[in-house]
Amino acid sequence: MGPRAVVLVTGDEVLRGRVSDRNGAHLAAWLDSRGIGVEVVTIMGDWREGIRDAVASAVGRGVDLVCLSGGLGPTHDDVTMEAVALAAGRPLEVNPTALAMVEARSRGISVGAASAEGTRRKQASLPSGAAVIPPAGTAPGCVLSVDGSVIVVLPGPPWELRAMWDAATTDEPALIALLARAAPSPERILRVHAVGESRLVEFLESPGAPPTGALTFGICAKDAELELTLRGDPAAADALQGHLSASLGKALFSTDGTTVDALIATQLTRRGETVAVAESCTGGGLGARMTAAMGASDFMLGGVVAYANDIKRDILGVGQDLLDRHGAVSSECAAAMADGARRLLGSTWALSVTGIAGPGGGGPGKPVGLVHIGRSGPTGTVTQEHHFRGDREEVRRRAVAAALHLLRRGLADA
Amino acid sequence: MGPRAVVLVTGDEVLRGRVSDRNGAHLAAWLDSRGIGVEVVTIMGDWREGIRDAVASAVGRGVDLVCLSGGLGPTHDDVTMEAVALAAGRPLEVNPTALAMVEARSRGISVGAASAEGTRRKQASLPSGAAVIPPAGTAPGCVLSVDGSVIVVLPGPPWELRAMWDAATTDEPALIALLARAAPSPERILRVHAVGESRLVEFLESPGAPPTGALTFGICAKDAELELTLRGDPAAADALQGHLSASLGKALFSTDGTTVDALIATQLTRRGETVAVAESCTGGGLGARMTAAMGASDFMLGGVVAYANDIKRDILGVGQDLLDRHGAVSSECAAAMADGARRLLGSTWALSVTGIAGPGGGGPGKPVGLVHIGRSGPTGTVTQEHHFRGDREEVRRRAVAAALHLLRRGLADA
Repeated sequence: MGPRAVVLVTGDEVLRGRVSDRNGAHLAAWLDSRGIGVEVVTIMGDWREGIRDAVASAVGRGVDLVCLSGGLGPTHDDVTMEAVALAAGRPLEVNPTALAMVEARSRGISVGAASAEGTRRKQASLPSGAAVIPPAGTAPGCVLSVDGSVIVVLPGPPWELRAMWDAATTDEPALIALLARAAPSPERILRVHAVGESRLVEFLESPGAPPTGALTFGICAKDAELELTLRGDPAAADALQGHLSASLGKALFSTDGTTVDALIATQLTRRGETVAVAESCTGGGLGARMTAAMGASDFMLGGVVAYANDIKRDILGVGQDLLDRHGAVSSECAAAMADGARRLLGSTWALSVTGIAGPGGGGPGKPVGLVHIGRSGPTGTVTQEHHFRGDREEVRRRAVAAALHLLRRGLADA
Repeated sequence: MGPRAVVLVTGDEVLRGRVSDRNGAHLAAWLDSRGIGVEVVTIMGDWREGIRDAVASAVGRGVDLVCLSGGLGPTHDDVTMEAVALAAGRPLEVNPTALAMVEARSRGISVGAASAEGTRRKQASLPSGAAVIPPAGTAPGCVLSVDGSVIVVLPGPPWELRAMWDAATTDEPALIALLARAAPSPERILRVHAVGESRLVEFLESPGAPPTGALTFGICAKDAELELTLRGDPAAADALQGHLSASLGKALFSTDGTTVDALIATQLTRRGETVAVAESCTGGGLGARMTAAMGASDFMLGGVVAYANDIKRDILGVGQDLLDRHGAVSSECAAAMADGARRLLGSTWALSVTGIAGPGGGGPGKPVGLVHIGRSGPTGTVTQEHHFRGDREEVRRRAVAAALHLLRRGLADA
């Protein structure tokens, strides 16, 4: 059995749900992919004794790696370093290297320029003997080994945590040695679009399905996709993949973990084609997702957020008579929006979204969750009608995902 | 002391970081605001014995409320109901009411129409004696009382969990009684813009600051804002608020928890004014945030995602000579984009964002994180230059927040 880890996310603001934790998932995914099994992710408040006990308990159980996130700030409720020092049975000391880093960092930031000496010394106080992880923001982290367990302390802001974790896993001997002991098992990620979880289970359990005893698998539903993670014997994974491919056809759109976003980006870039968007109910969410990764400027020209009907008419050229006759939430309007965006921006492809995200705004024949999406391109213009369940956020997110898949299919067929 | 709760989020896909948990934060925030103290949020895998032990341990410690999320699906790794039944020492039984609900739900969904009888019976199996929470999606939840603890089992998809939690807290006598015992302490949320955490701490601890012994407070940093939550004696909260108001001036922009998004929406709607956006590096994220809440159609007209420079020129009317001379990431371009969007869409106000979100794309004098934002409106056109730290996602989110605050200040001054 490979190394085991626990992740401890601290912070009253996280425990009280003021902010949604993203660090636990990031660390867990990172460790899992390297073959380090995460036993549990625990979110607790800025509670010195609670953190101390959780760390001491993990060390006592022989957990190989304890990752902590949060509570390294300058305020009185930031107690993580103190709690870790208590769990390790070591004094908290101002680390000169850390202090120099904190001071250098504070000078660079105008809003922090007035930081008092005390807060800087607090942020530079680490358990005795710990190795410093240089700060990405203002707070340094640290790595220390206690009774055979490696303890890593990282700050709460997600981008700081990510940058410092990457640095620590590259630079810190204790972490490097731990990672070298891990043996990731071969993993394959299949992605399926527009197939329900129940139906996938039927395919997996149908009489013709190959045995899956040599595999462990997990199914994760997200937007209109299922992500199927297979681990274990590659031959068994091949057999299962072949079976699903025969059963599901093109709905199985990725067999190497590539996301729909990456598929689209690769295809468009390879062909030298471009895309534009025309969004109503998603308000810009489709464009934001299409530009979430660097390199989007190779294919994404931009688009029009046509939230008001006047904008659909005046900028995208959707006819007033069309709007009067069919309404803005109609396949006709989705088609005209996509055509209009393609014409206006001069792109190879254009996607449109118009719908009723709710919670209000539904009417007879046009319930909340009704979304029409359109695609205009070299192969013509097509639309799809969707009825999404869920709240406003969910309907908007599903609409964005549906539009991406409509483009993916257009690219595959063109 | 009021009732105490623990939240247990289950699912291999959550523990392995494939999806980021949102349910823990939602339940924790809900409970916290009702005066129910959340001790811990635990994320664990689909592990029957682990879930059983965690529930049994909480019941054994006399925790008043145990909320579980996830693991109610049709697949073999969905074990939550079974684990709860084991912890409660009760058999798992097909609940006829739940079965009828699952069957009715399955009929309504095309992708679920092929569900086998077995998966439906599995989803309708609850611990004996549990009250059914009707499904929002396909899986019912349940409420049961065990040795004085109330256990609530909810599905993993966030919108299903929210809808069913709302229904359960309204309809289930055991939960209603528990909530009636809770006494939320008076809480005040202050929001501060563009002040660092260290600087806020200095103001709180400065010689002129009022005593805070009668208050508990938490500080949460998010984007360019600090959220300060005060609980306890209202007079002490008044004194602290007065001190901060004198120290921070207009940076203290909300004293009743109202978000910048809601402030803008209220102001614009009250005045009958409208807004448009012109986005480059945020790709639509500003528009998406401005339309995240229902009612946005009262003031949001739409906008232009001008990711490519040609779009800035051809649609927003940014001069080619301006682009040649100053580049697309410049205050000149931000001003021209905002003016262009306001003119094109005919809005009262327009906001623009142009910057280098990274990780690549930086250059001499224009580093990654440089973002210019602009505001065009009845009081003229203004721009701001920002240097955001963080990864691509963080830079884009901060840019969106900065643009909202620029509009907020424009509305306050107009």
